[in-house]
Amino acid sequence: MNEIKIFSPATVANVSCGFDVLGFCLNSVGDEMVIRKTSEKGIKIIRIEGFDLPFEAEKNVAGVSALAMYNTLKPDCGFEIEIYKFIKPGSGIGSSAASAVGSVFGMNELLGKPYNRTELTEFSIKGEALASKCEHADNLAPAMFGGFTLVKSVCPLEILQIPTPHHLYATIIHPQIEIKTAESRAILPKEVPLQDAITQWANVGSLIHGLHTSNYELIKSSLHDVIVEPHRSQFIPNFDEVKNEALVAGALGCGISGSGPSIFALSEGFDTAKKVEAEMKKIFSNTDIAFETYVSKINTEGIKVLSSK
Amino acid sequence: MNEIKIFSPATVANVSCGFDVLGFCLNSVGDEMVIRKTSEKGIKIIRIEGFDLPFEAEKNVAGVSALAMYNTLKPDCGFEIEIYKFIKPGSGIGSSAASAVGSVFGMNELLGKPYNRTELTEFSIKGEALASKCEHADNLAPAMFGGFTLVKSVCPLEILQIPTPHHLYATIIHPQIEIKTAESRAILPKEVPLQDAITQWANVGSLIHGLHTSNYELIKSSLHDVIVEPHRSQFIPNFDEVKNEALVAGALGCGISGSGPSIFALSEGFDTAKKVEAEMKKIFSNTDIAFETYVSKINTEGIKVLSSK
Repeated sequence: MNEIKIFSPATVANVSCGFDVLGFCLNSVGDEMVIRKTSEKGIKIIRIEGFDLPFEAEKNVAGVSALAMYNTLKPDCGFEIEIYKFIKPGSGIGSSAASAVGSVFGMNELLGKPYNRTELTEFSIKGEALASKCEHADNLAPAMFGGFTLVKSVCPLEILQIPTPHHLYATIIHPQIEIKTAESRAILPKEVPLQDAITQWANVGSLIHGLHTSNYELIKSSLHDVIVEPHRSQFIPNFDEVKNEALVAGALGCGISGSGPSIFALSEGFDTAKKVEAEMKKIFSNTDIAFETYVSKINTEGIKVLSSK
Repeated sequence: MNEIKIFSPATVANVSCGFDVLGFCLNSVGDEMVIRKTSEKGIKIIRIEGFDLPFEAEKNVAGVSALAMYNTLKPDCGFEIEIYKFIKPGSGIGSSAASAVGSVFGMNELLGKPYNRTELTEFSIKGEALASKCEHADNLAPAMFGGFTLVKSVCPLEILQIPTPHHLYATIIHPQIEIKTAESRAILPKEVPLQDAITQWANVGSLIHGLHTSNYELIKSSLHDVIVEPHRSQFIPNFDEVKNEALVAGALGCGISGSGPSIFALSEGFDTAKKVEAEMKKIFSNTDIAFETYVSKINTEGIKVLSSK
């Protein structure tokens, strides 16, 4: 096997109550990448379609994670990478994470899987850090493992795979405005009220319990964020209205995807998720802001091989 | 049925990472109470053994919760209560909670169970508030339901029953010094670093996942408290040494039970829990402080009927 084509999915980080630790994986949107072994050593990005991103490996998220793995393993070959980017950078649904996991996952397959998925995520963190200026894994973990994940700690990296209830669907709206992850982190308070923190960890605990028991009512009552959303939602036009209409349409919960600007909702069943999408579209159709929407079953597989030769 | 004798168990609140929301139930220590229907209306406490507590219903935790239920239901009879107290008040293993749930549980049985356990816990909160000066349910919930519980919210009261891994045992040491719950709350900071809060909710999430999957290693790595223990442990003599020796002896984790002074450890298997007990005893045997220890399987049943007539 000298060449592999992979699908690297978009992801939603934080999931309302689980800032910096929780995430889930999407099916209906993701990047494609082709990774090819070369006799010439080193990592070369030879093609990027979809969005304008740097070709120098050291300046490209996929390149940086690839180099982290390459320089550790020191294989007898090199790799060239083609990136077909469908997830818009800065959308808040794990664009850089998809790039960061894609290159190392593909290389690992071509090399006979010397690393497990946690080890691959370790390399991906280096790429992710290029984009967000800090090492975190809350988009990487669901992209790599699929389903819901909890990043228990980054150093050492511990990722937990949480069960995904079968009827859970996500609706995403991406209003095409720019929010920088680094800026979005900067507005967060350094300290938070203890009472709010208690509310938040009660919700994290009950969300994990709700996912384990497929208790949709409990998932619904756990999808609240009293810590981060009040600060970040001000950057997203129509956030309150979108959230309100999503809930009225039957969503279990609605919040900021990662650091935004995308907004996610979770629903029980495809029909409700579609209704939520219609309401979200209606709101942004009345503005000048361009947007895209996605409805997706939770992707329990994560990153995957599309073809190889 | 006119008379019932019940066992109302001791409990451990907080469980390291889950301040104010998590708790678990003990087997080997608890109060006994006899509740008897009377033709005369009202609530009368007619006997208290073990510790010196007020007989006036309005000033007694068991009396206050009994009155809350009695005044709501307005039954055609009254009740007299005998309290055989084995859990020392102020020990930090849910002494007031055992009293608060005992009276209402017993009355409810005698009346043909008009209330479910969550409703009974609502009444118990009134009794608990007399002792701790604030309404919380993190000892009440495990006493009432058994096993591990997560109090998702107090108002409205939402209690989640979390699965209990089969080989989980608790070791408790109660150094007989006085710590007032109210004072112990007062020293807690009003605000906490966001980074610490994130660590804490990652641990809460992973502990719930660990309990669901009987993953003892994960339970071990989740039993950390970066928020409350650093403040409260200073009130408990030898806390650091006890914790260290418990972990060396093989405990999965060790922390303050409720607001102390009791210290709890969780272990996989009875033998390890006994070893932990021996180490704890050794440390306090070298001091002037009187102490008691308990080793207990996690009590998955909670409060229960011992006999009735």
